[in-house]
Amino acid sequence: MNDLQLDADGRLRHFITLAGLPRATLERLLDRAEALRRDSLDGARPLDVLAGRTLINLFFEPSTRTRTSFDLAAQRLGALAINFDIERSSTVKGESLLDTVHTLEAMHVDAFVVRHKESGTPETIARNLHSRAAVLNAGDGNHAHPTQGLLDALTLHRRGADFSKLAVVICGDIRHSRVARSDVDALRTLGVRDLRLCAPPELLPDTADADFAQCTFVSTLDAAITGCDAAIMLRLQKERMEAASIPSEADYFARYGLTRTRLARAKPGCFVMHPGPINRNVEIADDVADGAQSLILEQVSNGVFARMAVLAELLSK
Amino acid sequence: MNDLQLDADGRLRHFITLAGLPRATLERLLDRAEALRRDSLDGARPLDVLAGRTLINLFFEPSTRTRTSFDLAAQRLGALAINFDIERSSTVKGESLLDTVHTLEAMHVDAFVVRHKESGTPETIARNLHSRAAVLNAGDGNHAHPTQGLLDALTLHRRGADFSKLAVVICGDIRHSRVARSDVDALRTLGVRDLRLCAPPELLPDTADADFAQCTFVSTLDAAITGCDAAIMLRLQKERMEAASIPSEADYFARYGLTRTRLARAKPGCFVMHPGPINRNVEIADDVADGAQSLILEQVSNGVFARMAVLAELLSK
Amino acid sequence: MNDLQLDADGRLRHFITLAGLPRATLERLLDRAEALRRDSLDGARPLDVLAGRTLINLFFEPSTRTRTSFDLAAQRLGALAINFDIERSSTVKGESLLDTVHTLEAMHVDAFVVRHKESGTPETIARNLHSRAAVLNAGDGNHAHPTQGLLDALTLHRRGADFSKLAVVICGDIRHSRVARSDVDALRTLGVRDLRLCAPPELLPDTADADFAQCTFVSTLDAAITGCDAAIMLRLQKERMEAASIPSEADYFARYGLTRTRLARAKPGCFVMHPGPINRNVEIADDVADGAQSLILEQVSNGVFARMAVLAELLSK
Repeated sequence: MNDLQLDADGRLRHFITLAGLPRATLERLLDRAEALRRDSLDGARPLDVLAGRTLINLFFEPSTRTRTSFDLAAQRLGALAINFDIERSSTVKGESLLDTVHTLEAMHVDAFVVRHKESGTPETIARNLHSRAAVLNAGDGNHAHPTQGLLDALTLHRRGADFSKLAVVICGDIRHSRVARSDVDALRTLGVRDLRLCAPPELLPDTADADFAQCTFVSTLDAAITGCDAAIMLRLQKERMEAASIPSEADYFARYGLTRTRLARAKPGCFVMHPGPINRNVEIADDVADGAQSLILEQVSNGVFARMAVLAELLSK
Repeated sequence: MNDLQLDADGRLRHFITLAGLPRATLERLLDRAEALRRDSLDGARPLDVLAGRTLINLFFEPSTRTRTSFDLAAQRLGALAINFDIERSSTVKGESLLDTVHTLEAMHVDAFVVRHKESGTPETIARNLHSRAAVLNAGDGNHAHPTQGLLDALTLHRRGADFSKLAVVICGDIRHSRVARSDVDALRTLGVRDLRLCAPPELLPDTADADFAQCTFVSTLDAAITGCDAAIMLRLQKERMEAASIPSEADYFARYGLTRTRLARAKPGCFVMHPGPINRNVEIADDVADGAQSLILEQVSNGVFARMAVLAELLSK
Repeated sequence: MNDLQLDADGRLRHFITLAGLPRATLERLLDRAEALRRDSLDGARPLDVLAGRTLINLFFEPSTRTRTSFDLAAQRLGALAINFDIERSSTVKGESLLDTVHTLEAMHVDAFVVRHKESGTPETIARNLHSRAAVLNAGDGNHAHPTQGLLDALTLHRRGADFSKLAVVICGDIRHSRVARSDVDALRTLGVRDLRLCAPPELLPDTADADFAQCTFVSTLDAAITGCDAAIMLRLQKERMEAASIPSEADYFARYGLTRTRLARAKPGCFVMHPGPINRNVEIADDVADGAQSLILEQVSNGVFARMAVLAELLSK
């Protein structure tokens, strides 16, 4: 994918996946996010590094959280952000996805933020553009959610994590999770060596799945979390629960929910993370979600800065 | 509520209700609205007193008029205004209202404009915030619609009304009306002593209802409007009409509709007001709604300036 | 209509139809669009000729393409553009169209962009305004789509067309097409003398239809396109196809679709145009739509500049 994402000088052209992205690129994005955070919060005038640029949100799956985060990131950098309302658009009238994209490109769009239920859609768009527009993947199928991976890395980095010494568990529906894949990509690239995956057997990836190479598969959360510095809990889709023969949410919580007791098996101060929205008392107990070790809302804050960093990297001159 | 709405220095922190708000605060808002009206209309550059600030519209009940008014108020002051699309949001996925609010707060939001069908929702949000964000009530259940009360007071004030000498009738479904409550709050605070309420018996409030203390209950509009300086007609919800055993809109109009004949019983030049949208020839006859004494469209104009004043008071440094 | 569209000094007040608009006005709009294109694309700061102005999109028919084009045009000139969400608005609650318009006017709106399925709605609005707001017709029934006519003329003009020597065929559902009417208006005004209309018999206009006076009606596309400099293909609505007793899309394509073979009957380099969205292989064969003679995406690009020109003409001081 780097033929697509990076130009000949190694400069970022699109942001489709973290898989294979050079460590230096990822670190530059983390630094840029941190710099933008300082510039945004010091109370000065709004930034205008993207003044005159146009970004289109193309969300084929509903997501107000991620879309609002991208919207704020773009507008706080001075860009014009347009939400293209898929449900009322010509794609309903039978216009193909690429015809819609080419039409919008012809209106001089600088970036497309794409969410789609099918893996590969952002790449397909990026490979078929007529212009120099950038494509940002806001989540495609089970494939990738690279700004989530970046913001999770940023959240740990801002908390002083030394990636080379970190033990991290990711728990939940790993098999179908684009968040798990992008988190693993980010953390591995940044040097995390102890990466553990925990899920009900039906929701673990195939052992041959290259996306999760070098990860350890652990079947119980009690074992998986022992000695960890961070636990990333994933959202459980109800449909998946049934497919995994889990009789109820209470049953899932009993086996894979993060409670205070389980958290006590991790290292002291182990960070608790979740991409949101949480199902309280399914993935995480209330007191853990709202407790001192929870970084869930920091993730949201950092998400805006991570997206600003990617937009600035892709679009500023 | 003033513990919530005002800080130790008496400065406005949230705008949830007009009940109990000091007269000086209300008068400062009226002055500020008037000043912003002048600054906006003199053709100069757009204002930027809220540049860099972010406002989120959280409308759990549909309302394009009020939302557009807030939107324009915020953007004309230079703020970023984001409409959070409730129907497509994670609240659908089971995320609680407060989790949604905390997530948005984590994106560094400066103000939430909240409309909700349940009374008390804006207060609940304000009491549970993690940040210094301000909450503006854009209408909650039967409880309050404070910017409407403010804009109605502004409209009378700009027409030169001397509140201490004013006789005002409010006519319609008083019992269930947040507009009636906020109008009574505003007018009483500003010194109006002759406040009359007129409604079908089923739609009058309980006589013990403290929200309407010191108001006179009058059962016919012919009597209620006699000698008035202003008549505020409320919108009739069809569902309420049935509950009040009113057989038809024509019947309601015959008994409570504002016609030219009835208006002649008021003082000459009596102002005609309505929060909109009007049901023509149900609450007000066409020729009265469009007549020289009607301030209905002035209310709309003043609404934008009233909301600008509140936003500037809450958010400018 | 010019009593409505032009003020006493011949200055544009509304943009409802191209019918009867003076050639000098049209040429000034073409020049202005070209100047704005240069200013927009030279990489300088965003334009601000409409800073402080407010535009409302009032789309009673869904159209994300045209609405996005107007949105970008307005915002790139520095105006505030608000999408008024008709489906959730008070028009649902029974407020009349004109009450909605007057309410929005009272919020100090400078322009309304109106799309409506009934012919005449933009004119009705323009004739009943209370303020000096401008009305831009974004398509009304079968009547007119004047910015489409303007952008199509702009597209030919920028390709160096000498209108006085041009032969143009318009093919498709002429009878019900506001695009055809506005294209004919634009091209005739600019001096095109050889204007040919081609359609299935049921979709041709009445021969007495003054909208298409001086046009030649040709029953087969093979004949109609012969010797043409430009072919404007119209979108086929499925409902119309049935009404015209055309058994299938394949049948329509066989008789009226623009293929490479048919295009070879035109002059070399004949331009291929379509207002979009295309039904591929119904109105135009894939290889023609994507071929070197296709101006379809240039039309989209020019659409933004054409709309900027109209907005600047109507709203700048």
